[in-house]
Amino acid sequence: MPNKPHAVDSTFHALADPTRCAVVRALSQGNATVSDLARPFDMALPSFTQHLGVLENAGLIVSWREGRSRVCALNAGALRDAEDWMATARREWEARMDRFETHIHKMKKESSDD
Amino acid sequence: MPNKPHAVDSTFHALADPTRCAVVRALSQGNATVSDLARPFDMALPSFTQHLGVLENAGLIVSWREGRSRVCALNAGALRDAEDWMATARREWEARMDRFETHIHKMKKESSDD
Repeated sequence: MPNKPHAVDSTFHALADPTRCAVVRALSQGNATVSDLARPFDMALPSFTQHLGVLENAGLIVSWREGRSRVCALNAGALRDAEDWMATARREWEARMDRFETHIHKMKKESSDD
Repeated sequence: MPNKPHAVDSTFHALADPTRCAVVRALSQGNATVSDLARPFDMALPSFTQHLGVLENAGLIVSWREGRSRVCALNAGALRDAEDWMATARREWEARMDRFETHIHKMKKESSDD
Protein backbone atom coordinates (compact mmCIF):
# COMPACT_ATOMS: atom_id res chain seq x y z
CA MET A 1 0.00 0.00 0.00
CA PRO A 2 1.51 3.39 -0.93
CA ASN A 3 1.90 6.28 1.47
CA LYS A 4 2.83 4.11 4.42
CA PRO A 5 3.82 6.61 7.09
CA HIS A 6 7.08 6.10 8.93
CA ALA A 7 7.22 8.36 11.97
CA VAL A 8 3.58 9.36 12.29
CA ASP A 9 2.33 5.97 13.44
CA SER A 10 4.75 6.16 16.39
CA THR A 11 3.41 9.68 17.12
CA PHE A 12 -0.16 8.29 17.06
CA HIS A 13 0.91 5.35 19.25
CA ALA A 14 2.41 7.81 21.75
CA LEU A 15 -0.84 9.82 21.80
CA ALA A 16 -3.09 6.73 22.06
CA ASP A 17 -3.31 7.09 25.83
CA PRO A 18 -5.07 9.72 27.94
CA THR A 19 -2.14 10.16 30.36
CA ARG A 20 0.27 10.84 27.52
CA CYS A 21 -2.22 13.20 25.83
CA ALA A 22 -2.51 15.07 29.14
CA VAL A 23 1.30 15.35 29.40
CA VAL A 24 1.43 16.87 25.88
CA ARG A 25 -1.29 19.39 26.86
CA ALA A 26 0.57 20.23 30.08
CA LEU A 27 3.85 20.75 28.21
CA SER A 28 2.10 22.98 25.66
CA GLN A 29 1.86 25.43 28.60
CA GLY A 30 5.63 25.33 29.11
CA ASN A 31 8.50 23.11 30.18
CA ALA A 32 8.05 21.17 33.42
CA THR A 33 9.98 18.81 35.65
CA VAL A 34 9.03 15.13 35.77
CA SER A 35 7.79 15.53 39.37
CA ASP A 36 5.58 18.50 38.44
CA LEU A 37 4.16 16.59 35.47
CA ALA A 38 3.52 13.47 37.58
CA ARG A 39 1.78 15.30 40.47
CA PRO A 40 -1.82 15.34 39.07
CA PHE A 41 -1.75 11.62 38.30
CA ASP A 42 -2.65 8.86 40.71
CA MET A 43 0.15 6.69 39.39
CA ALA A 44 3.45 5.23 40.63
CA LEU A 45 6.43 7.26 39.36
CA PRO A 46 7.97 4.32 37.43
CA SER A 47 4.72 3.86 35.47
CA PHE A 48 4.57 7.60 34.81
CA THR A 49 8.19 7.73 33.60
CA GLN A 50 7.41 4.83 31.25
CA HIS A 51 4.73 7.04 29.66
CA LEU A 52 7.31 9.83 29.31
CA GLY A 53 9.67 7.28 27.70
CA VAL A 54 7.05 6.46 25.05
CA LEU A 55 6.56 10.17 24.30
CA GLU A 56 10.33 10.74 24.14
CA ASN A 57 10.93 7.71 21.86
CA ALA A 58 8.28 9.06 19.49
CA GLY A 59 10.09 12.42 19.43
CA LEU A 60 7.10 14.26 20.95
CA ILE A 61 9.06 15.44 23.97
CA VAL A 62 12.69 16.00 24.88
CA SER A 63 14.16 15.95 28.39
CA TRP A 64 17.39 16.89 30.12
CA ARG A 65 18.85 17.02 33.63
CA GLU A 66 18.87 20.31 35.53
CA GLY A 67 20.56 19.75 38.90
CA ARG A 68 18.56 17.06 40.67
CA SER A 69 15.53 17.35 38.37
CA ARG A 70 14.71 16.13 34.90
CA VAL A 71 13.01 18.80 32.78
CA CYS A 72 10.70 17.95 29.86
CA ALA A 73 9.77 20.08 26.85
CA LEU A 74 7.36 19.56 23.99
CA ASN A 75 8.72 19.02 20.48
CA ALA A 76 6.03 20.80 18.50
CA GLY A 77 7.57 19.67 15.18
CA ALA A 78 6.45 16.07 15.78
CA LEU A 79 2.88 17.29 16.40
CA ARG A 80 3.02 19.28 13.18
CA ASP A 81 4.16 16.24 11.15
CA ALA A 82 1.22 14.17 12.45
CA GLU A 83 -1.19 17.08 11.87
CA ASP A 84 0.10 17.41 8.30
CA TRP A 85 -0.43 13.69 7.69
CA MET A 86 -4.05 13.89 8.88
CA ALA A 87 -4.72 17.15 7.03
CA THR A 88 -3.45 15.62 3.76
CA ALA A 89 -5.77 12.60 4.07
CA ARG A 90 -8.71 14.83 5.05
CA ARG A 91 -8.14 17.36 2.24
CA GLU A 92 -7.83 14.64 -0.40
CA TRP A 93 -11.14 13.22 0.82
CA GLU A 94 -12.76 16.71 0.80
CA ALA A 95 -11.47 17.43 -2.71
CA ARG A 96 -12.95 14.12 -3.87
CA MET A 97 -16.29 14.96 -2.25
CA ASP A 98 -16.24 18.40 -3.97
CA ARG A 99 -15.62 16.78 -7.37
CA PHE A 100 -18.40 14.28 -6.67
CA GLU A 101 -20.80 17.10 -5.74
CA THR A 102 -19.92 19.01 -8.94
CA HIS A 103 -20.52 15.85 -10.97
CA ILE A 104 -23.95 15.27 -9.36
CA HIS A 105 -24.86 18.94 -9.89
CA LYS A 106 -23.88 18.72 -13.59
CA MET A 107 -25.84 15.50 -14.06
CA LYS A 108 -28.95 17.05 -12.44
CA LYS A 109 -28.60 20.14 -14.65
CA GLU A 110 -28.25 18.05 -17.81
CA SER A 111 -31.24 15.98 -16.76
CA SER A 112 -33.43 19.11 -16.23
CA ASP A 113 -32.19 20.65 -19.55
CA ASP A 114 -33.44 17.59 -21.49
CA MET B 1 -5.00 16.75 34.84
CA PRO B 2 -7.21 19.16 32.89
CA ASN B 3 -7.94 18.87 29.17
CA LYS B 4 -8.13 15.10 29.18
CA PRO B 5 -9.30 14.24 25.71
CA HIS B 6 -12.19 11.83 25.30
CA ALA B 7 -12.47 10.73 21.69
CA VAL B 8 -9.10 11.81 20.37
CA ASP B 9 -7.09 9.16 22.20
CA SER B 10 -9.20 6.47 20.52
CA THR B 11 -8.51 8.19 17.16
CA PHE B 12 -4.78 8.15 17.93
CA HIS B 13 -5.01 4.51 19.02
CA ALA B 14 -6.71 3.66 15.71
CA LEU B 15 -3.94 5.44 13.78
CA ALA B 16 -1.12 3.90 15.83
CA ASP B 17 -0.62 1.16 13.25
CA PRO B 18 0.81 1.36 9.71
CA THR B 19 -1.91 -0.87 8.19
CA ARG B 20 -4.69 1.29 9.63
CA CYS B 21 -2.89 4.48 8.53
CA ALA B 22 -2.65 3.03 5.02
CA VAL B 23 -6.40 2.23 5.03
CA VAL B 24 -7.16 5.85 5.96
CA ARG B 25 -4.93 7.09 3.13
CA ALA B 26 -6.59 4.68 0.69
CA LEU B 27 -10.08 5.80 1.75
CA SER B 28 -9.06 9.46 1.36
CA GLN B 29 -9.03 8.60 -2.38
CA GLY B 30 -12.65 7.41 -2.24
CA ASN B 31 -14.91 4.69 -0.86
CA ALA B 32 -13.75 1.11 -1.32
CA THR B 33 -14.94 -2.42 -0.64
CA VAL B 34 -13.28 -4.46 2.11
CA SER B 35 -11.79 -6.83 -0.53
CA ASP B 36 -10.32 -3.92 -2.54
CA LEU B 37 -8.87 -2.41 0.63
CA ALA B 38 -7.41 -5.75 1.75
CA ARG B 39 -5.79 -6.62 -1.62
CA PRO B 40 -2.43 -4.78 -1.17
CA PHE B 41 -1.82 -6.34 2.25
CA ASP B 42 -0.15 -9.67 2.86
CA MET B 43 -2.57 -10.45 5.68
CA ALA B 44 -5.37 -12.95 6.40
CA LEU B 45 -8.80 -11.37 5.87
CA PRO B 46 -9.91 -11.86 9.53
CA SER B 47 -6.84 -9.91 10.73
CA PHE B 48 -7.51 -7.20 8.18
CA THR B 49 -11.18 -6.88 9.18
CA GLN B 50 -10.06 -6.57 12.83
CA HIS B 51 -8.05 -3.50 11.77
CA LEU B 52 -11.16 -2.13 10.03
CA GLY B 53 -13.11 -2.77 13.25
CA VAL B 54 -10.64 -0.65 15.25
CA LEU B 55 -11.00 2.20 12.72
CA GLU B 56 -14.80 1.91 12.77
CA ASN B 57 -15.00 1.82 16.59
CA ALA B 58 -12.91 5.00 16.70
CA GLY B 59 -15.35 6.65 14.28
CA LEU B 60 -12.66 7.10 11.61
CA ILE B 61 -14.52 5.02 9.04
CA VAL B 62 -18.08 3.91 8.40
CA SER B 63 -19.16 0.82 6.47
CA TRP B 64 -22.33 -0.64 4.99
CA ARG B 65 -23.42 -3.63 2.90
CA GLU B 66 -23.94 -3.21 -0.85
CA GLY B 67 -25.12 -6.52 -2.29
CA ARG B 68 -22.47 -9.09 -1.42
CA SER B 69 -19.79 -6.53 -0.58
CA ARG B 70 -19.08 -4.32 2.42
CA VAL B 71 -18.16 -0.76 1.44
CA CYS B 72 -16.04 1.51 3.65
CA ALA B 73 -15.85 5.31 3.71
CA LEU B 74 -13.67 7.75 5.58
CA ASN B 75 -15.23 9.93 8.29
CA ALA B 76 -13.15 13.07 7.82
CA GLY B 77 -14.75 14.72 10.88
CA ALA B 78 -12.88 12.37 13.24
CA LEU B 79 -9.60 13.29 11.53
CA ARG B 80 -10.43 16.96 11.93
CA ASP B 81 -11.13 16.58 15.67
CA ALA B 82 -7.75 14.93 16.22
CA GLU B 83 -6.02 17.55 14.03
CA ASP B 84 -7.68 20.31 16.08
CA TRP B 85 -6.50 18.74 19.33
CA MET B 86 -2.90 18.63 18.10
CA ALA B 87 -3.07 22.10 16.57
CA THR B 88 -4.33 23.55 19.89
CA ALA B 89 -1.45 22.00 21.84
CA ARG B 90 1.07 23.10 19.21
CA ARG B 91 -0.28 26.69 18.98
CA GLU B 92 -0.29 27.14 22.76
CA TRP B 93 3.34 26.00 22.81
CA GLU B 94 4.25 28.35 19.93
CA ALA B 95 2.48 31.29 21.63
CA ARG B 96 4.43 30.59 24.79
CA MET B 97 7.71 30.45 22.85
CA ASP B 98 6.83 33.79 21.18
CA ARG B 99 6.17 35.40 24.58
CA PHE B 100 9.44 33.97 25.88
CA GLU B 101 11.34 35.34 22.86
CA THR B 102 9.77 38.80 23.38
CA HIS B 103 10.72 38.68 27.06
CA ILE B 104 14.35 37.75 26.25
CA HIS B 105 14.51 40.49 23.60
CA LYS B 106 13.18 43.06 26.12
CA MET B 107 15.65 41.96 28.79
CA LYS B 108 18.56 42.23 26.31
CA LYS B 109 17.37 45.69 25.24
CA GLU B 110 17.06 46.88 28.87
CA SER B 111 20.51 45.46 29.59
CA SER B 112 22.09 47.32 26.62
CA ASP B 113 20.23 50.55 27.56
CA ASP B 114 21.82 50.55 31.06
